[in-house]
Amino acid sequence: MRPDGRDSGRKPTLAVVGATGAVGGVVLELLSTRHDVWGRIRLVASERSAGRRLVVRGEETEVEALSEEAFRGVDVAVFDVPDEVSARWVPVAAAAGAVVVDNSAAFRRDGDVPLVVPEVNAAAARSRRRGIVAGPGCTTLAMIVALGPLHQEFGLTELVVSSYQAASEAGRAGAETLRDQLVKVGGTDLGSLPGDVRRTVGDYGPFPAPLALNVVPWAGAWEEGGWSSEETGIREESRRILGLPGLRVTATCVRVPVVTAHSVSVHARFENEVTVERAHEILSSAPGVVLYDDPARGEFPTPADVVGTDPAWVGRVRRCPDDPNALGLFACCDNLRKGAALNAVQIAEAVAAELAAEA
Amino acid sequence: MRPDGRDSGRKPTLAVVGATGAVGGVVLELLSTRHDVWGRIRLVASERSAGRRLVVRGEETEVEALSEEAFRGVDVAVFDVPDEVSARWVPVAAAAGAVVVDNSAAFRRDGDVPLVVPEVNAAAARSRRRGIVAGPGCTTLAMIVALGPLHQEFGLTELVVSSYQAASEAGRAGAETLRDQLVKVGGTDLGSLPGDVRRTVGDYGPFPAPLALNVVPWAGAWEEGGWSSEETGIREESRRILGLPGLRVTATCVRVPVVTAHSVSVHARFENEVTVERAHEILSSAPGVVLYDDPARGEFPTPADVVGTDPAWVGRVRRCPDDPNALGLFACCDNLRKGAALNAVQIAEAVAAELAAEA
Ligand SMILES: NC(=O)c1ccc[n+]([C@@H]2O[C@H](COP(=O)([O-])OP(=O)(O)OC[C@H]3O[C@@H](n4cnc5c(N)ncnc54)[C@H](OP(=O)(O)O)[C@@H]3O)[C@@H](O)[C@H]2O)c1
Ligand SMILES: NC(=O)c1ccc[n+]([C@@H]2O[C@H](COP(=O)([O-])OP(=O)(O)OC[C@H]3O[C@@H](n4cnc5c(N)ncnc54)[C@H](OP(=O)(O)O)[C@@H]3O)[C@@H](O)[C@H]2O)c1
Repeated sequence: MRPDGRDSGRKPTLAVVGATGAVGGVVLELLSTRHDVWGRIRLVASERSAGRRLVVRGEETEVEALSEEAFRGVDVAVFDVPDEVSARWVPVAAAAGAVVVDNSAAFRRDGDVPLVVPEVNAAAARSRRRGIVAGPGCTTLAMIVALGPLHQEFGLTELVVSSYQAASEAGRAGAETLRDQLVKVGGTDLGSLPGDVRRTVGDYGPFPAPLALNVVPWAGAWEEGGWSSEETGIREESRRILGLPGLRVTATCVRVPVVTAHSVSVHARFENEVTVERAHEILSSAPGVVLYDDPARGEFPTPADVVGTDPAWVGRVRRCPDDPNALGLFACCDNLRKGAALNAVQIAEAVAAELAAEA
Repeated sequence: MRPDGRDSGRKPTLAVVGATGAVGGVVLELLSTRHDVWGRIRLVASERSAGRRLVVRGEETEVEALSEEAFRGVDVAVFDVPDEVSARWVPVAAAAGAVVVDNSAAFRRDGDVPLVVPEVNAAAARSRRRGIVAGPGCTTLAMIVALGPLHQEFGLTELVVSSYQAASEAGRAGAETLRDQLVKVGGTDLGSLPGDVRRTVGDYGPFPAPLALNVVPWAGAWEEGGWSSEETGIREESRRILGLPGLRVTATCVRVPVVTAHSVSVHARFENEVTVERAHEILSSAPGVVLYDDPARGEFPTPADVVGTDPAWVGRVRRCPDDPNALGLFACCDNLRKGAALNAVQIAEAVAAELAAEA
């Protein structure tokens, strides 16, 4: 034991903060199925959950309430809690000596906190002045794993993005709200008169309008100029991850009645002329990407097929008829996995490897 | 009676072909509620429906089987039948002397057939060399009523469109398929494992993948370069209706689990600089448009609010942060009403007025 309570030469200790949540649940599943690099794993959530027992790596493990004490001896902490909880507690964990990987939006725009997607900018995670690494929002993640290698080849200049975002982005409460609403509208002939869905679904939960039998063109908080925070987030996150501060980005974020797996329709313009053949070559060998693109044979990604899988799936790759420098594509990824839990676990594993190399 | 069987000086006779379908049902509803300009109304469908009685203008009316005979004495015929039925029978009706308004895709790309949206290019309906006027697809209609006046002001140069298309675009069979699937997935915890929705929904009906708890990035037939016919249709129809043969257009068509009302996320670039204020002014006085744009107060169009209403609703109007000449907007319209039945009835009424003026 070192004086700071950390074991040198031993496998690092990991804390999963928000272990009881939608993303936290997938983190535990990943920790139980991936190559195991961790010593002790501590599970942390709110006081409400303290004492609950969750299974990780086949072992029942007691959930602790979030406190300074929870970070004693912790080498790496993965945070999957609401923004305001991260804003308060991530610095506490970092001050206690843990490297923090945060999945909330609290630090994504902080210039001293690298924003990392390992397939695209893994090296950035090493210069973490505040001891914090952030993961981007799940809509950015759905497309950026594919856009990184396309940018390397063709030189990205502009993105126009429209999203199809799943309910579980709003956590367990979001998924439950959609399921409750679907039970209420199922078996009815609703959906043909104005307002009948609104009157029937009851509680909108975390959404600003009914989600069953509907699509909702709003996600996040109101920002200057009528943009939502999710939309400005996609712009700033894409620029940071790709290292392109001048990238032109415009996004429209829309919630759809899907439980899990985000989709994005992307119009990407490049410096150089593109071909579908070359884009296919690049995407089929890109790490973390599955190219699934043969619509004549019914092959294009949909949430129902992509949910529960690790990669970002890409299909509908087309060259724009009026612009030889522009591609259209449709990408899907599980917002709880690559969109959150998996990306954070990958970063945490890279930090663990760094610590092992240093020891 | 004139020798051709038409009454001069009388109200014109209308035939509704496809009266038993999803669009046809809305045509009957509109004919029963709008200012009545018609003499006799004949209802036509397939042999399967011959003898059924439907109510129009409060009267039970017998459905006739489609035949040459059905167009005897008909002045105007509105066709709402599958493409191949229109391709065969529209010329028959025109040869019998009826002016035909066709809602199928059969004549939308025919240079001798005007493609008409009355709010945008009403005059085009008057030069109908073949006696046929076509209405555009419902996705084009969802946006073009708003884009027409914006183009007049700012000069449109480019459109990037992603759609959120409802099941009833595929007619009664489409709406029923979605409802059946929703009953099967309702009350389950499906939507978290790959393929579980696919295994549960059973029949995909007219769609290439499950629609409940899913979004499907494919609508229409396969075309050159991996585009769907709905996507190339949006490009060609927008160009024709706006009279802009060089307009750059790229579209991605996606089906969503909504019964009725299409939505589109539109990125529109103009020759001139835009402001949200001026765009709001234009849209608030545009015929057939409702501006509903105050997201801070929960005001943006959604299918659940727009279904069953006549106008095209527009919200989320934003100027792009990286391009002062570009606007983002989100538009919704009932695909069975303005997207099909209403547009055709408006054209038919204009033709009736023409005939009255000539008589
Ligand atoms: N869901 C996604 O697709 C996704 C994707 C990317 C990023 N994220 C981000 O990841 C974070 C977690 O999202 P989620 O979807 O997993 O949410 P969730 O299902 O609502 O879970 C929230 C978690 O935070 C814990 N928590 C809440 N308040 C707390 C407090 N005061 N102190 C300690 N723990 C507290 C909860 O513990 P209790 O069970 O004890 O309340 C629970 O473990 C959010 O910042 C979200 O924006 C989510
Ligand atoms: N739904 C939309 O949102 C929408 C929007 C724009 C345009 N459109 C177009 O409008 C047309 C009708 O669509 P819909 O949605 O109303 O379809 P639908 O619900 O399937 O109705 C089809 C109609 O066509 C009739 N029909 C089918 N085969 C026929 C035949 N061989 N002879 C005579 N009649 C026949 C059917 O009569 P029976 O009942 O006797 O079979 C029924 O009245 C299609 O071309 C569609 O592409 C639809």
